[in-house]
Amino acid sequence: MFTGLSAFPLTPLHDDQVDEKAFVGLVQRLAAAGVDSITALGSTGSYAYLSREERQRVANLAVENAGDVPVFVGIGALRTSQVLANADDAAQAGASALLLAPMSYQALTADDVFELFRAVTEHTDLPVIVYDNPGTTHFTFTTDLYARIAQLPGVASIKIPALPANSAEAHKKVQEIRSAIPENVTIGISGDQSAVGGLKAGCDVWYSVIGGTLPELAVKLTRFAQNGEVSEAIEESVRLTLLWELNAEFGSLRVVAAIAEHLGLAPEKCLPLPIQGLDEQQRARVKTVIDQLDLA
Amino acid sequence: MFTGLSAFPLTPLHDDQVDEKAFVGLVQRLAAAGVDSITALGSTGSYAYLSREERQRVANLAVENAGDVPVFVGIGALRTSQVLANADDAAQAGASALLLAPMSYQALTADDVFELFRAVTEHTDLPVIVYDNPGTTHFTFTTDLYARIAQLPGVASIKIPALPANSAEAHKKVQEIRSAIPENVTIGISGDQSAVGGLKAGCDVWYSVIGGTLPELAVKLTRFAQNGEVSEAIEESVRLTLLWELNAEFGSLRVVAAIAEHLGLAPEKCLPLPIQGLDEQQRARVKTVIDQLDLA
Repeated sequence: MFTGLSAFPLTPLHDDQVDEKAFVGLVQRLAAAGVDSITALGSTGSYAYLSREERQRVANLAVENAGDVPVFVGIGALRTSQVLANADDAAQAGASALLLAPMSYQALTADDVFELFRAVTEHTDLPVIVYDNPGTTHFTFTTDLYARIAQLPGVASIKIPALPANSAEAHKKVQEIRSAIPENVTIGISGDQSAVGGLKAGCDVWYSVIGGTLPELAVKLTRFAQNGEVSEAIEESVRLTLLWELNAEFGSLRVVAAIAEHLGLAPEKCLPLPIQGLDEQQRARVKTVIDQLDLA
Repeated sequence: MFTGLSAFPLTPLHDDQVDEKAFVGLVQRLAAAGVDSITALGSTGSYAYLSREERQRVANLAVENAGDVPVFVGIGALRTSQVLANADDAAQAGASALLLAPMSYQALTADDVFELFRAVTEHTDLPVIVYDNPGTTHFTFTTDLYARIAQLPGVASIKIPALPANSAEAHKKVQEIRSAIPENVTIGISGDQSAVGGLKAGCDVWYSVIGGTLPELAVKLTRFAQNGEVSEAIEESVRLTLLWELNAEFGSLRVVAAIAEHLGLAPEKCLPLPIQGLDEQQRARVKTVIDQLDLA
């Protein structure tokens, strides 16, 4: 279940309320495109900004509208007891797995994070995906900590940040992690520009931001990589360079939100304030890239 | 009102619930020691980890137990609408001012942060303290942004991070900020080891972690600095070097929690999980420093 393409939909807001119709539309679009799993309430899904009640509702809507596609649900929060409550809600909604990033306000120690994952895996019967996203959590995992956490019963996958562009270095990094964790725990790449490189380097799954809004494109890339059509995968990823450059400049969340808004998949200004999203000039650049790359 | 010593009490937890008795004890201790203001629900008060209801209750208890001492209340949250709700609750509780840090999960732009402060100052009649705490918010203010925000009606003070140890550099930095903001907006130093240097460099107020647990010590330091007894202030701060070194090594929150627990002012393990606080060996070192410096 933790292989292939896991697509991360936005949770679009409208006037500070979850736009349920837009969210359902995104989930149905992902299921129709044949993604391997849907991760609701990832960073792309703004989990950190939503109330427990909003998250519960979003988890329910995701499972109800995903058809046969397994739904993973982000349960991260600043306080362990809040994480456990979110885990209960996700289980109740019918999630197939839980995604957990060690959110921080005060810096966390490795032991703090290990004990968080221990508490969660002891609390739930669902598989847990370890979510390493230092750009948002400001916590840096070591391979040693991956290894400690991956031994916990129930840990199913590790979502790692973008890999080095150099393919030998990327391969070495993935092998280093691979040799430190149990065989049954998969490794997932994030950072969309790093996806093909990551799959080529031995990652089992792509945890994808862009796949949550442009699933056909991400499915195509994933299948190339899975079928060993390496040159086709690289060619397609290179074709998308302008998109990856926007991500590097503005962050993938703001870019994908602008794309979804432009395509009518989300209402204008769909991110939670204080995140204003891209300004008019920046949106014009996104629109140009959408047209040039034929993403619509 | 935004001068002198503002003391930041812990919000001690016991079994994942706010220990109201311990919190009330801390607030009463601060009022009795003659601090100039009390800031409840600062970073030291674990605001980021508490629910809206818990925060409302803590704000009420602070105001009810502070006597004549003005109470400032931290209202930060990841989402603007949550911040506004916290502002309403703090006003309802009788807060004298609001403390606002731009918490982030996704990185914020300067415009995002400016608009957050604009929304809050438009929403409330209470004075607002700008809380610059890059170690926890991962947002870095520029002097230009201080200047833009300080122009907003209602902004009363800016809480800046620790200054350079070099006193000429510290003085230059404070003057740079001073010349960029309106005269009526005070500048407050944080980073306890930086307090005397900051007050000497022209800061008007010390926003103090240690003052929330050891108020007499912090009052003494503040009065020396305010009365121009510079050498006494420096001598006292130098005397506390071992304490500042613990802060540098473990972070002031974990150290002050260990001190409060050791002195019986807070229950054991009073920080919100996943923050475990110091281990036994580290606590033994804190105890040694308490004894050596006669902090009890």
